[in-house]
Amino acid sequence: MKKEEKKDIFEKITSLAKRRGFIYPGSEIYGGLTGTWDYGPLGAELKRNIKNEFWKNMTQEHENIVGLDAAIIMNPKVWEASGHLDSFSDPLVECKKCHHRFRADQLEKNPPAGGCPDCGGEITEPKQFNLMVETYLGSIEGEKLKTYLRGEITQGVHVNFKNILDSTRVKIPFGVAQVGKAFRNEITPGGLTFRSREFEQMELQFYTKPDKKESMKWMEYWKEERMKWYLSLGMTKKNLRFKEHEQLAHYAQAAFDIEYNTGGDSDASVGAGWKEMEGIHHRGDWDVRRHQEFSKQDLTYFDEETKERFLPYIIETSGGVDRATLFFLMDAYHEEEVKDGETRTVLKIHPKLAPYKAAVFPLLANKPQLVELAEKIYKDLKKEMMVIWDDRGNIGKRYRAQDEIGTMAGITVDFESLETEDVTVRDRDTMKQERVKIKELKNYINEKYQKN
Amino acid sequence: MKKEEKKDIFEKITSLAKRRGFIYPGSEIYGGLTGTWDYGPLGAELKRNIKNEFWKNMTQEHENIVGLDAAIIMNPKVWEASGHLDSFSDPLVECKKCHHRFRADQLEKNPPAGGCPDCGGEITEPKQFNLMVETYLGSIEGEKLKTYLRGEITQGVHVNFKNILDSTRVKIPFGVAQVGKAFRNEITPGGLTFRSREFEQMELQFYTKPDKKESMKWMEYWKEERMKWYLSLGMTKKNLRFKEHEQLAHYAQAAFDIEYNTGGDSDASVGAGWKEMEGIHHRGDWDVRRHQEFSKQDLTYFDEETKERFLPYIIETSGGVDRATLFFLMDAYHEEEVKDGETRTVLKIHPKLAPYKAAVFPLLANKPQLVELAEKIYKDLKKEMMVIWDDRGNIGKRYRAQDEIGTMAGITVDFESLETEDVTVRDRDTMKQERVKIKELKNYINEKYQKN
Repeated sequence: MKKEEKKDIFEKITSLAKRRGFIYPGSEIYGGLTGTWDYGPLGAELKRNIKNEFWKNMTQEHENIVGLDAAIIMNPKVWEASGHLDSFSDPLVECKKCHHRFRADQLEKNPPAGGCPDCGGEITEPKQFNLMVETYLGSIEGEKLKTYLRGEITQGVHVNFKNILDSTRVKIPFGVAQVGKAFRNEITPGGLTFRSREFEQMELQFYTKPDKKESMKWMEYWKEERMKWYLSLGMTKKNLRFKEHEQLAHYAQAAFDIEYNTGGDSDASVGAGWKEMEGIHHRGDWDVRRHQEFSKQDLTYFDEETKERFLPYIIETSGGVDRATLFFLMDAYHEEEVKDGETRTVLKIHPKLAPYKAAVFPLLANKPQLVELAEKIYKDLKKEMMVIWDDRGNIGKRYRAQDEIGTMAGITVDFESLETEDVTVRDRDTMKQERVKIKELKNYINEKYQKN
Repeated sequence: MKKEEKKDIFEKITSLAKRRGFIYPGSEIYGGLTGTWDYGPLGAELKRNIKNEFWKNMTQEHENIVGLDAAIIMNPKVWEASGHLDSFSDPLVECKKCHHRFRADQLEKNPPAGGCPDCGGEITEPKQFNLMVETYLGSIEGEKLKTYLRGEITQGVHVNFKNILDSTRVKIPFGVAQVGKAFRNEITPGGLTFRSREFEQMELQFYTKPDKKESMKWMEYWKEERMKWYLSLGMTKKNLRFKEHEQLAHYAQAAFDIEYNTGGDSDASVGAGWKEMEGIHHRGDWDVRRHQEFSKQDLTYFDEETKERFLPYIIETSGGVDRATLFFLMDAYHEEEVKDGETRTVLKIHPKLAPYKAAVFPLLANKPQLVELAEKIYKDLKKEMMVIWDDRGNIGKRYRAQDEIGTMAGITVDFESLETEDVTVRDRDTMKQERVKIKELKNYINEKYQKN
């Protein structure tokens, strides 16, 4: 697909997402709520599949990694220690004329040459706007505790560093994986789910010895592992790249992003340029050191081999689940000429991520024998995999409807099936059709699409 | 296990949960944050397994059910429409002497005969305390929108009723399943994770024709289905019961709880009496009708067969994930005399829920041939299932450590293994040992523990 078609794809995905039930605007019937999104039936499955693959890759397939699931609301001291209350902010500017707000760092320059991008008005000096979302807990009106929805899931791991050491048998180097929601009062939410106020992260916090060389070795390891993960789930290699941070957070020793190419040249919005999907950061011993200082708890690690006591270094991989979901959709989107100028839209999404592995069709919906046999097959497959039923319109239309949502196999029960006990199985990507014995169907689909 | 031992089990589970990494107090190094909990490595796996089984049961195994994953923060009008801003409250009383607060409906009577349960002081008149947790969204200080963290996940489904109709091919009767976090400013959080301020729900909203008989048929169906689900995952039948609500919400036509017997006689706290784990509610057309009224959108359903247009009735099944996790732990907890007065603690948790399916042990950690072969087996099994490695202490101790966290199989690699290419597999529940060929090990464990 050509580069200039990519922006187009973002718009097409936006439309498809709403129309087929991947993503709806949050609270839509009430006019929405800026920066929030609801995942519809297909989106919920796709996003779950991505998160499950992440979790499996981390906690099951890798060694020396355990999972964690910390609370969204934490003691406000956590955010003092982590530095979020002081410095988790973006530079906000406003147009004095139309009062539109912008992030100063997202304008081409500040103040912009032509004034406000929307009306040409004069732009204010930037002021720092803190992104943490406030909330209030407690049962006495007027005396509730002011605290925050976590601005990143990271800190839930680090405050439990000692708990994890005490309750498991992990030894450094080891990692803690987590998936969960975080919240930020983004100044300019946008690009569908690309930048939202409520979003989900999938992270690994990997603890190493506080040794530059050793920790950088792990940094390299995790950069490669994370890139491999996106590739293993079918993302196109040329649409992925590493981008080294030009400016490092004061505590960071190295930082790379994995970026996805959303097409176009500008960096202004999704559908235009390379966009951050995941960050791999060397955090030094910042988090554990700060939590030790602020909590007055001993968070050092005792190395039984060397008899040394130290605060570990941290390598973090921090991916956006919503961004990954969006980019997997964009990457999978294809329009293909089928014949005679007729085109089909097909989501060539990896079998492991596809919301449905198979669709079952009775050739004709008004023939009870066909419907009965198709139902039997449908119910049998449902025990083992996500399957969808469709008996409306002609078979060609049903294929197209399933192609558009990425269903791997189209299974048609026809009159021959009643005699020969086989069905037609049509592959989403190749559109090739095969006759498969009904009794071998489950294994056939499993082998071809579930175990890939 | 005798009834009077049950309270004891709650205390033992509380200790085990912390010690072995199932559940930690939230923000613990900062003195905690009342009503919040973090799931440690084992708890995160257990809770995930419960949620995954729920999701699979609903969206994959049942027909006419789709999933949804709505945002936690919604437009505040949602909570006006649902009635939460007016009436989602508990009666709060306070002791004038020690200032402890109680829920009036949880005291034996109000005012209590002996005054405050803690100090005997005088108790105030109850006042209604709203449980919704406030939050503030937006990027202008002083002009942020006051809204709420969802007090139940339910409304995320109903506000999307039209979106789901428009983007899928569901026909009434159909259901929408969802799993996610909700928040309440509980007056008396407690009982470990039983009543917390941040918690997770697993729900089905099932839409039927607005017909009393038809909808009650589905109410009965879902009551039985949900009870069967808990039983299918190994909960003890005699510890479960239905409890009909004595008082119905004004819109409800019927309401039952599935309760779990936490032991003892009183209803005062966990570890004492039957406790609500899940509610099955007939909500009439309340939610959809209210959202139609408040949003001014047409939320009616058009029945193509009867050509009728109507607002559907709703049957809801609403389970607490944290409660289920706690009760699965309590139900699975056993202390058994093994021999000569020696006892073992064993979590007889269902194979599908067990955090680890198998543990791999080299008989002696200082014999490289044993370690090498055990590592090979460990790495091979890890590709397909959750496995843990343990090479510390004697085999008996390793068995005990795994029993306590519910690991299904203990796999020991001994010197004989090097010759005969088989290993000892010891079953958690029966403690029986079998020799199994290494090349058959994956299938053996899969068949016995993964596919149950």
